[in-house]
Formats: sequence, C-alpha cells, structure tokens
Amino acid sequence: MWAFARADPRKAVFAAKVGLALALISLLVFLREPRDIVSHSVWAILTVVVVFEFSIGATLSKGFNRGLGTLTAGGLALAVAELSKNLGKLEEVILIISTFIVAFSTTLMKLHPKMKPYEYGFRVFLLTFCYVMVSGYNTGKFTDTAVSRFILIAVGAAVSLGINIGIYPIWAGEDLHNLVAKNFTGVAKSLEGCVDGYLKCMEYERIPSKILVYQAWDDPLYSGYRAAVEASAQEETLLGFAIWEPPHGAYKGMNYPWRNFTKVGGALRHCSFAVMALHGCILSEIQAPPESRKIFSAEIHRVGVEGAKVLRELGDKIKTMTKLSSSDILAEVHLAAEALQKRIDEKSYLLVNIERWDTSKQAEGIKEVINGTGIVAKEKKNEVMEPTIVDQTSGHHSKSFAVNSFLSRHDSASTVDSFKLLSWPARRSFHPSLPLEDDESKTYESASALSLATFASLLIEFVARLQNVVNAFEELSDKAKFKEPVEEPVTT
Amino acid sequence: MWAFARADPRKAVFAAKVGLALALISLLVFLREPRDIVSHSVWAILTVVVVFEFSIGATLSKGFNRGLGTLTAGGLALAVAELSKNLGKLEEVILIISTFIVAFSTTLMKLHPKMKPYEYGFRVFLLTFCYVMVSGYNTGKFTDTAVSRFILIAVGAAVSLGINIGIYPIWAGEDLHNLVAKNFTGVAKSLEGCVDGYLKCMEYERIPSKILVYQAWDDPLYSGYRAAVEASAQEETLLGFAIWEPPHGAYKGMNYPWRNFTKVGGALRHCSFAVMALHGCILSEIQAPPESRKIFSAEIHRVGVEGAKVLRELGDKIKTMTKLSSSDILAEVHLAAEALQKRIDEKSYLLVNIERWDTSKQAEGIKEVINGTGIVAKEKKNEVMEPTIVDQTSGHHSKSFAVNSFLSRHDSASTVDSFKLLSWPARRSFHPSLPLEDDESKTYESASALSLATFASLLIEFVARLQNVVNAFEELSDKAKFKEPVEEPVTT
Repeated sequence: MWAFARADPRKAVFAAKVGLALALISLLVFLREPRDIVSHSVWAILTVVVVFEFSIGATLSKGFNRGLGTLTAGGLALAVAELSKNLGKLEEVILIISTFIVAFSTTLMKLHPKMKPYEYGFRVFLLTFCYVMVSGYNTGKFTDTAVSRFILIAVGAAVSLGINIGIYPIWAGEDLHNLVAKNFTGVAKSLEGCVDGYLKCMEYERIPSKILVYQAWDDPLYSGYRAAVEASAQEETLLGFAIWEPPHGAYKGMNYPWRNFTKVGGALRHCSFAVMALHGCILSEIQAPPESRKIFSAEIHRVGVEGAKVLRELGDKIKTMTKLSSSDILAEVHLAAEALQKRIDEKSYLLVNIERWDTSKQAEGIKEVINGTGIVAKEKKNEVMEPTIVDQTSGHHSKSFAVNSFLSRHDSASTVDSFKLLSWPARRSFHPSLPLEDDESKTYESASALSLATFASLLIEFVARLQNVVNAFEELSDKAKFKEPVEEPVTT
Repeated sequence: MWAFARADPRKAVFAAKVGLALALISLLVFLREPRDIVSHSVWAILTVVVVFEFSIGATLSKGFNRGLGTLTAGGLALAVAELSKNLGKLEEVILIISTFIVAFSTTLMKLHPKMKPYEYGFRVFLLTFCYVMVSGYNTGKFTDTAVSRFILIAVGAAVSLGINIGIYPIWAGEDLHNLVAKNFTGVAKSLEGCVDGYLKCMEYERIPSKILVYQAWDDPLYSGYRAAVEASAQEETLLGFAIWEPPHGAYKGMNYPWRNFTKVGGALRHCSFAVMALHGCILSEIQAPPESRKIFSAEIHRVGVEGAKVLRELGDKIKTMTKLSSSDILAEVHLAAEALQKRIDEKSYLLVNIERWDTSKQAEGIKEVINGTGIVAKEKKNEVMEPTIVDQTSGHHSKSFAVNSFLSRHDSASTVDSFKLLSWPARRSFHPSLPLEDDESKTYESASALSLATFASLLIEFVARLQNVVNAFEELSDKAKFKEPVEEPVTT
C-alpha cells in the first residue's frame, strides 16, 4: 500500500482532498450552517462522495450531469405533484403510475449507446424524481423538499469543486498527453526488441500461452505494444473528461484539440499492429534459418534502430510540445528501408527454393547460383528426418517437419501451459503407414526461407505507416500551437 | 428510440422491471410499511436505483458490495461514536478527524488497481460512515440510524433481487457466451472479405483515415475483426459478472468455467490479429501485380474458404455447446495451406526479381525462366516512368515510383480526410535535379512481388494460429461438459 502511494503521489494527494472535503461537510453540519443541513445533510455528503473524481474533467462532467439530472427531475416531480394534488383519492394511483412510466422511459433511454456519457445523469434524474414524489407525498411539502435538497447539493458540489480545483488540481488532459507520449516509448522498445530478438534468433523456451490468448503478460517485447493497443479505451475515457476542462497550464485556448491527441494515439496503434505482426514472426513455428538472417542482419538492424529513433523523437516532441524541425524526420528511416529492400532484391535467391521450380523452366545454370545454400540445406536434412515424439498426450509417434533447430523448443511443450502449435506440421501422424515424403519436408524448408521475406516486408510496412503518425502529429502540432523547435545550427 | 427497443427487447423488459421495482417501493411508502420507511425512504429508493443492473451477475455483485460496505461502515461508525461519546468537548474534533482519516484511507485503497472490482463497495462504505457519524451526532441516536437504514436497504435490495431474478432474468454469462460465438462469425466474414478483396485486386477509392487512426468505421472487412479485437474489455467485464451468477439454464454446475470462454475469445483475438495483418496488405501502398495474384488465386481462395469454414463451425459449436466430432476439424484447412505453400514453392520465381541478383552469380539460364514475367514488367515500365503530381500541398513536382496501376488511387488523395502515405515513395522529390534512377523503380517493382509472398505467409500463419483456438475450445468443451455431437454416419 505504501509503495503504491509512493509510486504516484497524486493518488495520496487526491485521497487527502477527499478527506478534507468530507471533514469540511461534517464541520458545517456541526455548526448547523445552513440551517436545514441537519435534516438533509445526506445530500451534501452523497454529492461529495459521488462527484469527487480523480481528475477535474471527470468531476466537472459528473457535477454537470448531477446538476442537470436533479433540476429536471425536481421540476418534473413538482409538476406531476401539482397536477395530482387536486385529484383526491386518485392521487396515490397517479403517483405510482407516473413513477413507473418515468422509471421505464429513463432506464430505456439510459441503455441507448449514444446516451452512455450521460448514464450517471439519468440515474440521478430517476433517484431525485422518486425521492421528491415519495417524501413530498408524506410531508405534503413538495416544493420545500426539492428546494432544500437542491441547496444542499449545491453546497456539496461547491465544496467538491472548490477543493478539487483549488488544491493541487489533477487534469485528465495532462494524463491523456502523457499517456500518448508514453506509448511511443513503449512501441519503440517493442520494435527494437523484436528486431534484435529476430536477428539474435531469439527463442521462447515456451511460448507463454498468455500471449496466445491475448492476456496481460510481462514479456518486455509484448507489453510495450500491448499497452499501445489496449490504450484505446483509456484514451477515449480521458478524452471524454479532458474536453470538460477549462484551459490550464500549457493547454491554452478554448477548444483545445484534445481529439487530435487520440488521433495521434490511433495512428500509433496502427503502427503497433505492424510491430505485433513482427512479434508474430518470432512466435511463429516456421522460422528462417540463422544463416540467411545474418545476411540481411545489418539492413534489418538499421531499419529497426532508425524506426525506434523516429518513434522516440516523436514521443519526445509530444511530451515537450514542440513542432517538428524543418528537416524530414523520416528521411533516415526511409533510406534504411530502401537499403533493406535493395538488399532483399539482390539476395532474393536466398528466400526461395529454386530446386523446386517447375522443372520445364528450371535452367541448369541456377544450380550454381544456389551452391552456397545447397550445402547448408543438405546438412540440415539429416537432423530433420529423425522422428521425434511431439504430442505425447495423443500417444502417436509423429514425424517432425522441423525445418531448423528452432523447432526443438516445441519438444518440451507438452504441458498445458505451453504451446501446442506443432501438431499442425505433425498432423500426418494420423497416417503412420505413409512414408514421410521428401517433398513435404522441402515444402516447409522453403516456407522457412520465405518467412524472412515476410519479416522484412512487415518491417517496411511499419516504416510506411510511420508517415501516417507524422501526419497526425503535424495536424496536432498545428492545431495545438506547439512551440517552434530551437533550430540548431545546420552542420551539413 | 422505438427501433432501438425493438432491436433488443430485453432492454425494454429491463426498463419495465426497474419501473415495477420503484413503483413497488412507492406503494410501500404510501402504505407506511415498515413504519420507519417514511423518514428513511430515500435509502430504499437509492438502493433500487443503484443496485438494479442489467444482468443478474452485476446486480448480485453490486448488491454484495453495497451490503458489505454498509455493514462494515456502520459497525466502524458505531464504534467510533461509542468511543468519542464520553469525551465531551473533544467529541466533535474526534468525529471530524476520524472522518478525514477514514475518507483518506478508503479513497487511497479504492484507487489501487487490484481493488477496482470493489470500487463501488468503497464508495458505499465512505458514504455510510459519514452519514451515520453526522446524522447520529445530531440526533444522538447512532444505533437507531444505522439499524433503520440497514432495514430499508435490505427492503430495497430484496425488491431489486426479487424482481430482477424472478421476472425474465437477463444473465451476463449468456451474453458472454453469445459475444464469443458472434465474434467467430465476424472474423470469418473479415477473413473471406480480405481474401476475396485481395484476389479481386480490390482498391479503396480512398483509404478511410479512420482505419489508419484505428477508429470505429463501418467498412465490412474492418468491422468484423475490429469487433473481435475490441471485445477484450467487454469480455472481461461480462466475466466479472458471470462468475457471480448461480447455475442457470444450460450453464449447470458450480464453478462454471466462464474463464475459458474468455480464453477462447483471446485465442480468437490472436487469430484476428493475423486477419488484421492480411487487411494491412490490402491497405498497403506496395501491391502485387494482378497477374501474379491470379496464379495463386485458386490456392489462396481455398485457404480462405476453409479457414472461414473452420471459424464458422467453431462459432456454431460454441453457440450450440457441442463438442467437436472425432474427425480433425483442421484437416481440410491444413491441406489447403499445404497446397498453397507448395504452389508458392514451385512458382517462387514470380515473387523475386531475378534480374537483380548479384551479377557474378546470375546464370544465363535464368533469363529463360522469367521470360513470361519479363514481358509484363517491361510493359509496366512505360506507365511507371511518367511523373505524376502527388503532393500538391507541398508544391513539389515528384516522380511516382508507382509499381502498378493500384497506386493511381493515391492521386486523388490530397484532401485532409484521406491517405497521404505516398509521400514516402515520392520522397526524393526534394532533389528534383537528380535523374530518376532506373534502379529505384526496380526496387519497388520487386517489393511489389514480395508483397504477395507476405500475404501468403500471413495466411499460413493464420492457419497455424487456428490450432490454438481449437485447443482453447477443447479445454472449454471439456470443462463445461459440452454435449457430444450427433455422429453422422461416416461416408468415407
């Protein structure tokens, strides 16, 4: 608990503010000021407990909902009460029927998706309406109940707003700003991690099944992009509160473009789906051989480093609210991506399996071309052909189509908590009488080489999507009037 | 409003139930039964308004929170009141200080992430504590206030639970079940749409910028998988309610494995990220030429159809709560994926740019091999070399590296609402003096061919991930004791 409060002191401050507000209300009750506070004190307390939210935006939006709900409900209840007063015996029947009708229509409206932000207002409306009806009936003083209740709610709201805004205000807009900036760093970290992991031929001892069923997991590659992907709902919530907040601090001007922050967040999310697909290449059971990864290593690494640099720089610009300098932020990463593309182009014979081209078209000369890789492939075949027991639970012996040594990680994967994907390549084990065709093992061999091409394409796709983030950022920096960057002397 | 109520009649029923509960409470007040209802009626009304939630699980969980919060707060407040009673002058000071301390620690605890499900309980605790303190001080009857309040809350809770469970109950578990099953259909639809769209060389006239910044959009390809991706939070919420619900209907047995439904949902989500990546291939600005798509068309189409069939079948099995039949549900889709893989293997010369291999290794014979594609490529070059004005806002003329006619869609993309990615391939326009090197246009040309390989690899990755969904489904069907399928006579 203590560590938790230390991690974000704002939470402790907020808790102290709530304590202060409630203590103040108690003091008012003890002083009997205003006078009707004694009999209706519950409304002031209720208002504080309910309206006092963490951020200013949330407090204002709830306070507005509460005020509007109370006023309209009070008005309606008074009108109904006036009408039914002269009906004598029928009065009670009218009151009960109108309660039913109001409750029915309010609840139905509340459930409409478009009304979601006002859900709380509907609840307050219903509560006030019923209470004014019922207590007004008993005392016969409809107007008094409504008025004194309204005064006490106003007292509660005034105390809440005064303390919450007056003392160390916590702004939802600031949180939104920081959240968006933070996600850039997270995605950059994931990107570097994925690229490095791929080049180092990183293997998961066991692929945590939490990743496969998309649940929170503290894998460093995973958590970075997952945070950006999951932030969607949080950004929307914060946006909903931020638009209620008056101009403050660095966020000057009415109609501050909060929506553009979520747009930048969304564009970043679109990028992080590409990172997610890169991570998928590491998780995949078809893996490229380390030899061919080495050949493209320098180019892939460069794209990863440059991409992460762009993300970090954009995150930093958002954090410090600075415009982009005039030079093209994407120039380096585009050059890197072009270099990778060229390299792939020149070496693309490593990515395909020339031996298997339609024999009619297969020219003799090609054999020479693949001399280098041919040897590697032959060495492999010896390991590959050994049958391994993969799926012990099913009791079948199965031949593994493992294309390279990475697949060996799956051999330990018979516990519930781990990865069972291998049963696909080993699916043929249902026909143990069939001989293992050389043909099939070659199919997987070539699939493994193409997986490198996939990784590279996805990396290039990621770079292409960066443009989109830069566009969203520029729109934001224009609308929000970010400050001009301090131009460093050009040293070219 | 009317159409909305018609679309989901459960909502209208729910609204009617709320109306009924409140009307019943009003009736009790008019009958003055129990007797103290008149002065404390607000508690019964408040309880109904707050506790009456859409699903049974939510009602029970809120009711439990409310009950526990009220009881502990009442107990604590009485204890503090007893202690301070004999302190004379100091009493008020003690009351105010204890209010502050309790409010501070309750609020701090409430903010802890682990306490999130009990957030409501903490709120009730705080409210009750303050109210009992304040109103008890004024009347001097601490115990009476707490007891009569508790009785009325019990009345409100009893009415809520009685009506909500007794009349047409709405179960969160059922919603969770249906949500998971529905998402299977959505992903299947997206998959078919992506595969068909890719083969038909579907083009977006303008890529809706909403997709690029990940916002809701009613594109049929997009909305299917997006629903599955976004359902994460909704599934967690429904799970939180479902575990509160007693056994009912088809969901027999204590400890019903609701958690496994979310696991299946998560595994499906992992699949839908692969579909999302497929959709990314359609959105991407580097597109494979239609000629080569045609060559793989039959195989790709088959994988798409079989994959969607598996998803639909699994969704159906979940909906009807039936176990898988003994035959391997994935057999067909695996065969289709293997056929695709083989086809790629045999035709992989279409996916790379042999002309550009290191000249030392380039055997003469290869020229013959690519005869067919060479002609196509040469025809293209004429179109490609024409400079087009792409980015009119920047005022630069730029040479487009468009690899094929698909890129022409970007020419109309100068409005804010559309796609500006092209500035990357046209980035060189900053040096208009440089001649357009043939080299570069070829780089993009070969990238376009590899993009087909990426699409195919991602499709195969999707198939591999299906295994994972099947595993999760089997775990669920075991734990939840799904019924055995009706074995159809085997016709092999």
